[in-house]
Amino acid sequence: MEQPTKEERELGKTFLPKFDENGLLTAVVTDIATKDILMVAFMDREALDATVKTGLAHFHSRSRGKLWQKGESSGNILRVREVLVDCDQDAIILQCEPAGPTCHTGARSCFYRRLEGGVLRNVIS
Amino acid sequence: MEQPTKEERELGKTFLPKFDENGLLTAVVTDIATKDILMVAFMDREALDATVKTGLAHFHSRSRGKLWQKGESSGNILRVREVLVDCDQDAIILQCEPAGPTCHTGARSCFYRRLEGGVLRNVIS
Repeated sequence: MEQPTKEERELGKTFLPKFDENGLLTAVVTDIATKDILMVAFMDREALDATVKTGLAHFHSRSRGKLWQKGESSGNILRVREVLVDCDQDAIILQCEPAGPTCHTGARSCFYRRLEGGVLRNVIS
Repeated sequence: MEQPTKEERELGKTFLPKFDENGLLTAVVTDIATKDILMVAFMDREALDATVKTGLAHFHSRSRGKLWQKGESSGNILRVREVLVDCDQDAIILQCEPAGPTCHTGARSCFYRRLEGGVLRNVIS
């Protein structure tokens, strides 16, 4: 299949997700209520399709090499309310309602530390 | 050099950025004033060091295979005010003050479209 042009990707109304050489795009999850970023993960075509179909965030695990639904074991699912797409369509934002803490550590967000003077300090629990 | 353990990365106070097999980590840029996500890009060690040293966002261009400072030609630099780090230290958030539109299309954010019923609709200019 012919690749979409730069103009089609940037200006068009057609969703033409651009997967990298590993078949992945970047997904940033935000809390739709607070705008906080909860996590960053990767999606292949399968994960993207599963997310759009079910309304629940699915990703592709790079370490395990397979599809996973966020919260499938913990119950802390992410209900996707809005999807934003960037200019070249290789990154998306999932604006979500989280059912619980997003991070596997139990923190509300995976971004619970700030870099301060070269060291990390916890900023949220 | 020995790799840090999972616990050191997740619980420690030491900044131990985890670059993937291509030597990259994911950087999400937000507007510190509005919390909007402005862009997503990748950093190698060189881009991360340049960012921390100068306080201006630098990235690694995957297509051009080299370091670039955001705004080096357009003037639309990103002043980094805070850096957040995720649990496994393979993604960071740069909370920035943008000097102008972040997207090369002239939009304030690269995420200027929303996916609605399978098609893209412009939501910001």
